Amino acid sequence: MNITVAGIGITKFGELWSASPRSLAKIAVEMAIADSGVEKKSIQGLFVANMLAGMLGMQGHLGALFSEELGLSVPAYTVEGACASGGLAVQAGVMSILSGQYDTVVVLGVEKMTDHKPEEVSSALMGAGSNEERLAGATFPGLYAMLARAHMEKFGTTEKQMAAVAVKNHFHASLNPNAQYKNTITVDHVLRSSCIADPLKLLDCSPVTDGAAAIVLTKDTKNKKGVHIIASQIATDTLGLAGRKSLTELSATKQAAQHAFIQAGVGQKDIHLAEVHDCFTIAEILAIEDIGFGKKGEVGREMEHGTYTLGTAPGVVVNSSGGLKGCGHPIGATGVKQIVEITSQLRGTCGKRQVHDAKIGLAHNVGGSGATAVVHILQK
Amino acid sequence: MNITVAGIGITKFGELWSASPRSLAKIAVEMAIADSGVEKKSIQGLFVANMLAGMLGMQGHLGALFSEELGLSVPAYTVEGACASGGLAVQAGVMSILSGQYDTVVVLGVEKMTDHKPEEVSSALMGAGSNEERLAGATFPGLYAMLARAHMEKFGTTEKQMAAVAVKNHFHASLNPNAQYKNTITVDHVLRSSCIADPLKLLDCSPVTDGAAAIVLTKDTKNKKGVHIIASQIATDTLGLAGRKSLTELSATKQAAQHAFIQAGVGQKDIHLAEVHDCFTIAEILAIEDIGFGKKGEVGREMEHGTYTLGTAPGVVVNSSGGLKGCGHPIGATGVKQIVEITSQLRGTCGKRQVHDAKIGLAHNVGGSGATAVVHILQK
Repeated sequence: MNITVAGIGITKFGELWSASPRSLAKIAVEMAIADSGVEKKSIQGLFVANMLAGMLGMQGHLGALFSEELGLSVPAYTVEGACASGGLAVQAGVMSILSGQYDTVVVLGVEKMTDHKPEEVSSALMGAGSNEERLAGATFPGLYAMLARAHMEKFGTTEKQMAAVAVKNHFHASLNPNAQYKNTITVDHVLRSSCIADPLKLLDCSPVTDGAAAIVLTKDTKNKKGVHIIASQIATDTLGLAGRKSLTELSATKQAAQHAFIQAGVGQKDIHLAEVHDCFTIAEILAIEDIGFGKKGEVGREMEHGTYTLGTAPGVVVNSSGGLKGCGHPIGATGVKQIVEITSQLRGTCGKRQVHDAKIGLAHNVGGSGATAVVHILQK
Repeated sequence: MNITVAGIGITKFGELWSASPRSLAKIAVEMAIADSGVEKKSIQGLFVANMLAGMLGMQGHLGALFSEELGLSVPAYTVEGACASGGLAVQAGVMSILSGQYDTVVVLGVEKMTDHKPEEVSSALMGAGSNEERLAGATFPGLYAMLARAHMEKFGTTEKQMAAVAVKNHFHASLNPNAQYKNTITVDHVLRSSCIADPLKLLDCSPVTDGAAAIVLTKDTKNKKGVHIIASQIATDTLGLAGRKSLTELSATKQAAQHAFIQAGVGQKDIHLAEVHDCFTIAEILAIEDIGFGKKGEVGREMEHGTYTLGTAPGVVVNSSGGLKGCGHPIGATGVKQIVEITSQLRGTCGKRQVHDAKIGLAHNVGGSGATAVVHILQK
């Protein structure tokens, strides 16, 4: 593969009451283009990742909308795959360059969630799940609670171990100026927070977030700041949990990661940092196990001992941005933000949360309860 | 380009009260795979085009949903660009093969519109338009009525000439077993039908339709039935009419067509048949002019004289399927159905509506009132 992340841009993540989706997109894309040094007129395509604008705001056709809004006037696409929309759009952008159709494209992930009532957002998010789950009244916290319970029963994973994921990610987020949460928390805070879907507490769950992230992709590898995408893989599984062979792993993650490691010609031990899809704390444990950074059933214990935390070398640092839990989870933006974070880290520009001597990073983005998984590997 | 349309599948188009989106998708995709002779396990990716499932049915994540439903278990994407979703998904599929990511993919367009109240469908369709248009209460018939009025004033195009488009397309649809309407109509029928948005009458407008279409794309050019995609181009314009320089042309269509002719190395006179986006009769006149099959301002008159109609050689036959007007317009399916029709014609399997000795065909798919235009050129 011969794809360069030439520029990155990101807004603050959080409850951005005074920002519109357009203003967020503009900040992220203009920052990415300026950062890339590419002239705006050289941009040839736009890939927009978003899940909720249609369901909650009755606005479709976002590709053309943002192409106009950003003054690009280029071929534009909206790519959707629930919470994996960002990762899918990045891959679509990568393919568009590898195909020879375009030389330079922008991938934009954007979501504005706080303009809508929480129950409307919750209902719209279930659009990522199966019909049966929706009719049964399931919510994503409920579905991931089932995954957590299965993991606890099979491997002895504890609520404290899951809480340790949130503690780590809030610590990382406290070092990230763009993060939604800048407060560090303790295991006790997590355990004493309101129960959302037993065994998951409020602080086991990623929040509702507004935000946008953008990257400029190009086949020009001479870019000085360039970080390269060396693998881009997707896998799918059943939409609903009922169809899965196992509830203690996400097989789409396993497949996408395996294919990505083969494509990149690197292994788990070569990865210095990873952004994984911690929509719930159990999801990060599953991700670390299924990607193969830790052994199945052992990652909960490792988490309690501080593994995967910044500054505890050796081994991979997970979610240096704060992850979905600490940095926030604006659905369509998340997968693009992961690439922004990895790129910043590989450039060595992450300040207080810099992973020492980071050369290879991995991004892992999930849609629904694991129906879609996207894995990208990036190298300096 | 080296892309083969190896297989095609399509459902009947119409008010299919007893069919679900899943059943429609299954029929179209299984037909396309069987037709291609490709083994199901060789399919490596799925691109789903749909606009309304999220807005009207609160179901997102259609890529993974249909990947499971169809028993494919492959990387899957949803691509949206309003009424151009189908064309965009075809292009995304093309790029995925040219990029080397996949060898064989399925592109599925599917829409189920009749399960919802007409006013809900109408409101959801305005998701393709600009915010200003939506807030002003504009509808698509209203927007295209403005385009029609501008064309009438500038070029003297008449209501009769527009009606002739509907007459032609109903005639073609009467020869298409899958079409929504099999009744031929007269200019008088059109002129006497209810006024929807002056000067557009009911029979100037494409209907609300359920349906699905699917194609198997592969880089294998040895496929005996193979028809080849020799150009695939997209262009965008402002989402709303207010931003346009001219109301008597769709500049996105002009751009996409120009680029496609250059890419294919052919000109307008080499095209034997075209499926163009006749969501309203005026839209077909604009399309024929902007693609360059006829001169700007003269196509209305040509239409009255039967040009572009099956059996009136020489010249290009337009909308042999019946187009959106006669065959029906299941939003996400339309752009894929155009490729199905062109492929059938180039194979010579269209029976009564066969275009004599058709060797090169063009498909033109529009999103909104012209914010997105997609042009594909196919060759036997």
